[in-house]
Amino acid sequence: MALSVAELDQQVLGWLQEARLSILDQLKQPMQVNQKTSHRDLVTNVDKRIEQFYIQKIHDFMPNASVISEEGYGDEVTTLDGDVWFVDPIDGTLNFVEQHHEFATMLALYHDGKPVLAWIMDVMNNEVVHGGPTIGVFVNKQHVDGFEDKALSDGLIVMSGARLLGNQIGLPEIAKEALGFRVYGSAGISYCHVMKGQALGYISVMKPWDFAPGIALALTLGLAVTDVDGHAVDMLSSGTVVVSTPSSHEDIMRIENQLKSV
Amino acid sequence: MALSVAELDQQVLGWLQEARLSILDQLKQPMQVNQKTSHRDLVTNVDKRIEQFYIQKIHDFMPNASVISEEGYGDEVTTLDGDVWFVDPIDGTLNFVEQHHEFATMLALYHDGKPVLAWIMDVMNNEVVHGGPTIGVFVNKQHVDGFEDKALSDGLIVMSGARLLGNQIGLPEIAKEALGFRVYGSAGISYCHVMKGQALGYISVMKPWDFAPGIALALTLGLAVTDVDGHAVDMLSSGTVVVSTPSSHEDIMRIENQLKSV
Repeated sequence: MALSVAELDQQVLGWLQEARLSILDQLKQPMQVNQKTSHRDLVTNVDKRIEQFYIQKIHDFMPNASVISEEGYGDEVTTLDGDVWFVDPIDGTLNFVEQHHEFATMLALYHDGKPVLAWIMDVMNNEVVHGGPTIGVFVNKQHVDGFEDKALSDGLIVMSGARLLGNQIGLPEIAKEALGFRVYGSAGISYCHVMKGQALGYISVMKPWDFAPGIALALTLGLAVTDVDGHAVDMLSSGTVVVSTPSSHEDIMRIENQLKSV
Repeated sequence: MALSVAELDQQVLGWLQEARLSILDQLKQPMQVNQKTSHRDLVTNVDKRIEQFYIQKIHDFMPNASVISEEGYGDEVTTLDGDVWFVDPIDGTLNFVEQHHEFATMLALYHDGKPVLAWIMDVMNNEVVHGGPTIGVFVNKQHVDGFEDKALSDGLIVMSGARLLGNQIGLPEIAKEALGFRVYGSAGISYCHVMKGQALGYISVMKPWDFAPGIALALTLGLAVTDVDGHAVDMLSSGTVVVSTPSSHEDIMRIENQLKSV
């Protein structure tokens, strides 16, 4: 890379601002909404257009990088070797369509499987949580100094509403032990709560473009990151992801293990 | 009243701005947090100070009005006759303490049991949803024109996380039929989503100061308002409250009746 990591961060923040203006503009126009796997799994013309915009930027800037993306304009990626970008043009598409609020646009760059930089933008609030191991984590221009290592019973946890309702991956038991739980309907918005210290963790079942940015930022801050079995997350596959304070991660693993031993 | 309803609305918006500045100032200082009924039911020095501020304003302005309020500085109110104010200084105290975000300060004025005006302020976003039957509903200065009368399966519903987790008042079944559900941890923030058309309804079990502002605004817009049995809400008692689009209200009542007949 010709740019330093900090310069790359600034460059991509410019892409996000460009994407944001395009999204706001398209929100004023009639939206084409199509179902993917179900009536709760949507894609719009805006998702597609923004994904194409990012992929063009990435390919112009880093011709040798590969792109893992949500809406099918990326590459067939089977290895994390080299530079790999993860692109989620609109995360929380149901919120995007129904609320015109509480959705994110997200990118992450990994090199040889290690995070370099990530960006999660709360589009309507024009707030970007971004950074990586060499520069730290920022909320817009404000550095995030760290986090309070709260136990599960001492804080709020964010989770997938669908998985909670389906009584999956121990979410009801985890929610009961937590001080409280929240359901926001967007991985990006949920991760922002964790990085800003508003929640002690986020648990869901997700695809790589949903979790790659959050994991990059979480590892930078020193949060715990595993799947619900306590193993490393496979960055190329869908699966469960637990991102949380180390103390609450111990509580969550205890609950998961108790459920397995029943 | 010497003031018109529109003038009263403006006057109280001034009180809210004054309260907001005080809350923001107190957020910079160490907070005194005390438990009420449990470790999830909190009160802070800020709740108390803001409640006293509102009650002073109300008593100076309307000496004959009575006040129903959360933290004990109001009156013992046993009738809705005359002018009755409902005061919730900090709604979503757990979010206030843990997130410093996603909490509301709320007021409502009823006369002989009928709504006159109500105000719900999302403090951190400086956004007030306010109005009443004679002036309509506004988000800050923008008039809310109405709502789309969506069925439950066509939109997002907001609900109490604790009641959902406790498998109470049919919330799991309602959540399953909805396009999606959200849990925000504040009645005020939840009602704002409904008034702004971001969600088709909100269901919880609440106290009068939690639901009086939301009900006043909902009735103004023409939304359905009942308890989970389909009866009128008792404004002087704790209980279940369903505020939703008329179509989704029919769906919710069908689900409630099915559960009762099991």
